[in-house]
Amino acid sequence: MICRLLEGKKGLIFGALNDKSIAWKVAERATEEGAQVVLSNTAMALRMGDTHKLAEKLNTIVVPADATNVDEINELLSKTMEHFGGRFDFMLHSIGMSPNVRKGKHYSNLDYNYLNKTLDVSAISFHKIIQSARKLDAINEWGSILGLSYVAAQRTFYGYNDMADAKALLESIGRSFGYIYGREKNVRINTISQSPTPTTAGLGVKGFDNLMDFSERMSPLGNASADDCADYCLIMFSDYTRKVTMQNLYHDGGFSGMGMSLQAMQQYNKSFEYDKEHPFD
Amino acid sequence: MICRLLEGKKGLIFGALNDKSIAWKVAERATEEGAQVVLSNTAMALRMGDTHKLAEKLNTIVVPADATNVDEINELLSKTMEHFGGRFDFMLHSIGMSPNVRKGKHYSNLDYNYLNKTLDVSAISFHKIIQSARKLDAINEWGSILGLSYVAAQRTFYGYNDMADAKALLESIGRSFGYIYGREKNVRINTISQSPTPTTAGLGVKGFDNLMDFSERMSPLGNASADDCADYCLIMFSDYTRKVTMQNLYHDGGFSGMGMSLQAMQQYNKSFEYDKEHPFD
Amino acid sequence: MICRLLEGKKGLIFGALNDKSIAWKVAERATEEGAQVVLSNTAMALRMGDTHKLAEKLNTIVVPADATNVDEINELLSKTMEHFGGRFDFMLHSIGMSPNVRKGKHYSNLDYNYLNKTLDVSAISFHKIIQSARKLDAINEWGSILGLSYVAAQRTFYGYNDMADAKALLESIGRSFGYIYGREKNVRINTISQSPTPTTAGLGVKGFDNLMDFSERMSPLGNASADDCADYCLIMFSDYTRKVTMQNLYHDGGFSGMGMSLQAMQQYNKSFEYDKEHPFD
Amino acid sequence: MICRLLEGKKGLIFGALNDKSIAWKVAERATEEGAQVVLSNTAMALRMGDTHKLAEKLNTIVVPADATNVDEINELLSKTMEHFGGRFDFMLHSIGMSPNVRKGKHYSNLDYNYLNKTLDVSAISFHKIIQSARKLDAINEWGSILGLSYVAAQRTFYGYNDMADAKALLESIGRSFGYIYGREKNVRINTISQSPTPTTAGLGVKGFDNLMDFSERMSPLGNASADDCADYCLIMFSDYTRKVTMQNLYHDGGFSGMGMSLQAMQQYNKSFEYDKEHPFD
Repeated sequence: MICRLLEGKKGLIFGALNDKSIAWKVAERATEEGAQVVLSNTAMALRMGDTHKLAEKLNTIVVPADATNVDEINELLSKTMEHFGGRFDFMLHSIGMSPNVRKGKHYSNLDYNYLNKTLDVSAISFHKIIQSARKLDAINEWGSILGLSYVAAQRTFYGYNDMADAKALLESIGRSFGYIYGREKNVRINTISQSPTPTTAGLGVKGFDNLMDFSERMSPLGNASADDCADYCLIMFSDYTRKVTMQNLYHDGGFSGMGMSLQAMQQYNKSFEYDKEHPFD
Repeated sequence: MICRLLEGKKGLIFGALNDKSIAWKVAERATEEGAQVVLSNTAMALRMGDTHKLAEKLNTIVVPADATNVDEINELLSKTMEHFGGRFDFMLHSIGMSPNVRKGKHYSNLDYNYLNKTLDVSAISFHKIIQSARKLDAINEWGSILGLSYVAAQRTFYGYNDMADAKALLESIGRSFGYIYGREKNVRINTISQSPTPTTAGLGVKGFDNLMDFSERMSPLGNASADDCADYCLIMFSDYTRKVTMQNLYHDGGFSGMGMSLQAMQQYNKSFEYDKEHPFD
Repeated sequence: MICRLLEGKKGLIFGALNDKSIAWKVAERATEEGAQVVLSNTAMALRMGDTHKLAEKLNTIVVPADATNVDEINELLSKTMEHFGGRFDFMLHSIGMSPNVRKGKHYSNLDYNYLNKTLDVSAISFHKIIQSARKLDAINEWGSILGLSYVAAQRTFYGYNDMADAKALLESIGRSFGYIYGREKNVRINTISQSPTPTTAGLGVKGFDNLMDFSERMSPLGNASADDCADYCLIMFSDYTRKVTMQNLYHDGGFSGMGMSLQAMQQYNKSFEYDKEHPFD
Repeated sequence: MICRLLEGKKGLIFGALNDKSIAWKVAERATEEGAQVVLSNTAMALRMGDTHKLAEKLNTIVVPADATNVDEINELLSKTMEHFGGRFDFMLHSIGMSPNVRKGKHYSNLDYNYLNKTLDVSAISFHKIIQSARKLDAINEWGSILGLSYVAAQRTFYGYNDMADAKALLESIGRSFGYIYGREKNVRINTISQSPTPTTAGLGVKGFDNLMDFSERMSPLGNASADDCADYCLIMFSDYTRKVTMQNLYHDGGFSGMGMSLQAMQQYNKSFEYDKEHPFD
């Protein structure tokens, strides 16, 4: 549906790599709903991904920036404000990366330089873009800032590795800064804890397919897709949710509220049939 | 703002007593956003309140029903479906009452018949309206059901008494039934945990004014009003939030994320000045 | 191990049916650790179970009482105080029963008289024994009261039915009364959220065996047994935990902190092998 | 009380600066309860504090180590194992420091090098000591590891600054590593979320006294002291809590379960009297 939910609003979107990206969908849908957006990504992501195509489609600009670099963030924010002719209304942080995951370093054998990188890219960058935006007074009163998280911040998933800790840190930063930016400018800051999503990043997680299956069967509404997530982001940017802040919002088809579904258990139970038929495995 | 968010949707709203009621605001705003609504309340509330005026204004019907009485609920649902010409899309449960609170029975001296009444009216009625709706197949696929809660379900507030336990039960019912109704019909069920709100019910809580003040100063965005809450309810009824279920959603200006704000502490600190000036109190 | 952790303490234990019961283990272990205990159960449970044998073994008394009946509770408490020659130090509430589960009424087809019974037996009885104990001033300063819960209070498990709601209510009652009894007498009230346990009650839950298997594989330390739980209860009755109150304490080998373990996923994955080998199932 | 709860156990304790420190109390009480301990602290803390006195009193050794330096940790663990003649049973991580707090950098004006330091000292060091201990196989089966946290990890307290984010990260690390170390060696890892405590570190937090007062009045049992906390730590090191892992355990007199107490509200209400008497403030 389209109901011009974000008519006249302006926003900055980080992390639209390709058409599987949640940020990509948000940029598309926000535009449909009446918003103008500016896109940003690292120089490397811009080379590897399709962000420029999206910018063309949405008739907007891409500003390269490393979201861990305060100087580049400041320049990005300035260019964004220049493009918009002033302050804007929302920001989406959809950035995450773990060199430990990429290089196959197990959680019990972390490389601490990699860990610092994981935290800086996936969590501290959230603080950096908010701190810079506030210093530059870049966000309008009653603006809205979102980060994307995962339930691994609350419950351990094997293989998710140090990204779980990064998400816990991200959510905490959202809460901590939500207090400051809220009391001063009524800017709200929330994180959305999204179902496992087959983005380029998601697909890099070990055993992702089977986890998706389990998650799908556990969730009464099934996994939330990237498209679903985009809609939820729009809502959180809209004026309908002005008093929601410092929250981690589960957008997961009910997964976080489940201990065990009949559907998942029925599938699980087949494994015992398998065991009976293969007693020497 | 109005963007026809609920164009074509139909819903049943419990508990619109007067223009201070959250349910009242939801009914008004839902209509503005393109929905049709049916109103329901107990016969006694209909005598004491202004529900009929609202129905007139919104050009709809009021159906009296005691939401603790399954027969009356069934009749209400039938009439509602008759009015709408079939299934509908959303329900709002905004019902709560504690005879223990009303009669001044302290939590350590509960009357257990009253407690049963508190739970039946404030929580079990939520189960009853959902169970009946499901049996009658009254709700469309991807429908949305909401109950209203308060953070006292998680943290004890003196004087809130057995309503805290009722809210905990309400939230649990939402989660439990959310699983069932979700997997079968993709109907989502959530509760909204709202700021203290000066409704007729709220104003009946002991020490409400000062609690409102504390809550206001603790919340970076201030307390969420009944109007704000109505907007958030609309969002949860809309198609933008289809994959959110089994959640308790804080709509409270950030209160639930706060341990102590500077503003609340500054006010609190004055009490010590008072103590110094009144050493013999 | 035995280190006379409860030397000189006295307590009242509800729900020791047979040697599979958690309450049974607590009574045995508390005695070993230097406490005196009084046992209570309903008249029916006393006929069906072995509570009298346990009393004989522990050289103590059994007092029949229906924990939903305030008069019987008062009489029980009087007899207990008589037996002990005064106030006592701890109470364990290990009581739960759902007629809806027993009679196979699905959560979407609850009998509401049964639901009232479920809540009264499994949750409100907790309030009743505490309210009566407080009125009779039966508990010593810094005493400790425990109820037994399950993670279904937070996350839905198919088949656990209205017991989930009862547990949520139980936990809320513990919190609400913990505030009152704490500020007045420093009596602490907590609930322990225990792993699925093969007690007589547990074994009555649908699909219990396979749930136990899943839970065992998800929990890094495996499921906590009834014996383990008894030890944790002792700790919560001891003077080492005097400042812990209003908490729901997970005692579950880590289950509540898990989203997905490698071990559970490996078992789950076999189900897909089964599917491949049985494509027409 | 003393009941030889830790008879024969051995442990390594980080962060015993002076007799106000929680770690100091744990070391003393653990020894009383039958354990042997080794103490560790940074070289600088050893110069400024009294750790050597404690070691003398407890007839044990101090090993200087910077808990952010893996080489120093490895050396510390080797010396500890040498001292004990093999593996040991428990570790307490009581380490936290924020240069941003110390230098008065507001949360909206963080120095990111300082933030890295905060996270490294207060949270990542927890991972480092566990990872090193596991690699060296330093901990016995069913061993127990504890970190100390604060409710600011869940709720924002003004002035607590980036320590809130560090505590969120610390708790996540405990959970993430608890899964790994639990499934392999049954070693449990938990964090204790302690009341504000007037340690040297605590007293450094802005507005600490008044926060202590508020917390005291909000908590039905009052704030938990360092002595109380030591007892709770012992419990978590003992064999009575073997199946508790991946938890954040509130040890706070009930604070975390409270929304508003009568006592805190009565104090707060005096501030309005003050306002009336000082209308021009």
